[in-house]
Amino acid sequence: MAWISATYLMSSTADDVGSRAEALALEQSVELPLAAVRDARIREEIVARVAAVEPVDSGRYLVKLKLAAATVDENPAQLLNMLFGNCSLQDDVELHDIELPPALLSAFRGPRFGIEGVRDITRVHGRPLTCTALKPQGSSPEELAELCRTFADAGIDVIKDDHGIADQRYAPFAERVKRCQASVERARERTGKNVQYAPSLVGTPRQIAEQARIARDCGVRMVLVAPMLVGLPAFVEFAKDADLAILAHPALGGLRMSPALLFGKLFRLLGADAVIYPNYGGRFSYAAEVCKALADTLRVPWGALRPALPVPAGGMPVERTGEIVAFYGKDTMLLIGGSLLVAGDAAGERSRSFVAAVEKAGAR
Amino acid sequence: MAWISATYLMSSTADDVGSRAEALALEQSVELPLAAVRDARIREEIVARVAAVEPVDSGRYLVKLKLAAATVDENPAQLLNMLFGNCSLQDDVELHDIELPPALLSAFRGPRFGIEGVRDITRVHGRPLTCTALKPQGSSPEELAELCRTFADAGIDVIKDDHGIADQRYAPFAERVKRCQASVERARERTGKNVQYAPSLVGTPRQIAEQARIARDCGVRMVLVAPMLVGLPAFVEFAKDADLAILAHPALGGLRMSPALLFGKLFRLLGADAVIYPNYGGRFSYAAEVCKALADTLRVPWGALRPALPVPAGGMPVERTGEIVAFYGKDTMLLIGGSLLVAGDAAGERSRSFVAAVEKAGAR
Repeated sequence: MAWISATYLMSSTADDVGSRAEALALEQSVELPLAAVRDARIREEIVARVAAVEPVDSGRYLVKLKLAAATVDENPAQLLNMLFGNCSLQDDVELHDIELPPALLSAFRGPRFGIEGVRDITRVHGRPLTCTALKPQGSSPEELAELCRTFADAGIDVIKDDHGIADQRYAPFAERVKRCQASVERARERTGKNVQYAPSLVGTPRQIAEQARIARDCGVRMVLVAPMLVGLPAFVEFAKDADLAILAHPALGGLRMSPALLFGKLFRLLGADAVIYPNYGGRFSYAAEVCKALADTLRVPWGALRPALPVPAGGMPVERTGEIVAFYGKDTMLLIGGSLLVAGDAAGERSRSFVAAVEKAGAR
Repeated sequence: MAWISATYLMSSTADDVGSRAEALALEQSVELPLAAVRDARIREEIVARVAAVEPVDSGRYLVKLKLAAATVDENPAQLLNMLFGNCSLQDDVELHDIELPPALLSAFRGPRFGIEGVRDITRVHGRPLTCTALKPQGSSPEELAELCRTFADAGIDVIKDDHGIADQRYAPFAERVKRCQASVERARERTGKNVQYAPSLVGTPRQIAEQARIARDCGVRMVLVAPMLVGLPAFVEFAKDADLAILAHPALGGLRMSPALLFGKLFRLLGADAVIYPNYGGRFSYAAEVCKALADTLRVPWGALRPALPVPAGGMPVERTGEIVAFYGKDTMLLIGGSLLVAGDAAGERSRSFVAAVEKAGAR
């Protein structure tokens, strides 16, 4: 008998939390009152169990359930279903953390490249990496390629599309990718740095497979994908098929799950090589300790899974580089977009400042 | 210039709401300060606009944005991205409603069968439909088929798998579907009713495509799919390929979107023929007016899209049949699962009571 451990943060009164936890265990397994489960084997082996209830603060409890691994097998959609299918609709419950038994964990391959693979592709060792975004959407392929050239000449390691850039009529995917990839390839010759362009893939499973094919044909090694936008099970299949490093974007990630679990644990489990998330102190509201837990979860030893690269982002100015590198350490990629672009004609200069600041901070 | 109208429910102070709304418009389009958008065409045609800000109650506002339809084209993942990609991570914002311009709306086919198609398949006209669930997971294919026979003999119109039933080792998909389908086919001969078995499909895009193939080969006409579990873009592709009526399950639907929008509008737009949702007064917390709005959204005339069938569910006893039919009207399918199964050996009898109650209520 193997069990998944799932911990939920539950809002409740002290009087109710025990029965509420038992109800959650039934909701996430048999969806029946226990009395209606007449088969002793199902009561023993399938019905979820309350393993612990611990108070957190006034009115909040950590409820740890054991869920039967046999109900999941190796199916990623079914894993989500058993962890958070029905109770995602109950607003007193947040999925806080999970632990998978070894056999289930080994069914997922995790990052294909991971931190070392991303370092090999970019040829950046011994320091944090730099990343920026091509913006705004609405720009033509020529404009995006020109901006890409500016960033690449400045030596930024990874230049990704803004996540809103798709396959729009004003900037068709194939033309944009060809031009932007040409920009980084020319810059490689000039700078000797192995700068990467990571196009944004977005669409149905067939659409992103076709986009990946086009990107690969152009020589692209790394892509941007938002796992929640394409859907986590489709993301698993994509990661399995695509021999491309995957930079995961958090768009549509606003489920009631802890960020460390969704972006740290699940994104890594399902195949992300690097994970973008809103950094503390930016225009999103994540606290510093949430960001630290998320980054740690991506990098901590976990079964046979490769570690994935944390990519803090979201309204960070170049001036915070030293602080952010000190906070996260070397195995981090700093994503600064808007703060470079607001410089207008001086975007190239500001990009070089960013690159120099990361090299200086990382060399300490 | 075509615009998508997106309305958000925002928590804010009166002083801040104006600037917060402007920030949201930038976040959901160019992700840059307006000053950094130097191209006049992009400012005119791509940057989202604040169309209205209206107070709702203390500290809450409806913020209506216009989003450029050109940023979406006909890509369902990109539609989600532009509507709620980044701001789903901001917990002061809920996506409340959307309106699509005609050209974008016509890019989506909506339900293939819709209410009339489901009525044709089940041959039920002029009254509400009945639905129940095979439970609990952990049961063998033989046990599920036996339970299916009990329900089918009682004349329940649609017998679906519990959404936790997948392709587990203890009940492999192919064997289960073959046996349960045989149960309903035998019952059709005995009862003259065209009772349907709707197996649960769950997995990656390739897994659900293969499950659909097996189900079709067995003669199945209707399936259960949770669009959020398989991912909405994968769901769109599935609905396009599968010549099967789709009963959509709300699992993993706990985004900060209004239920009427996610389960009513988006599930219908993307291809659901019937939509299960937690009914008021059950073990979930939806209010009656939320359920009414959701059901209305599924059935209201909307472009060329067929109406979809509301399927209220979640802890409803048979005794509430009259009230629920009076509330929703004839074009509804009542899903009662646990309340039949707790009867144990009397489940068949209780199922016949359910069927009789719906026929009586619907004939009024």
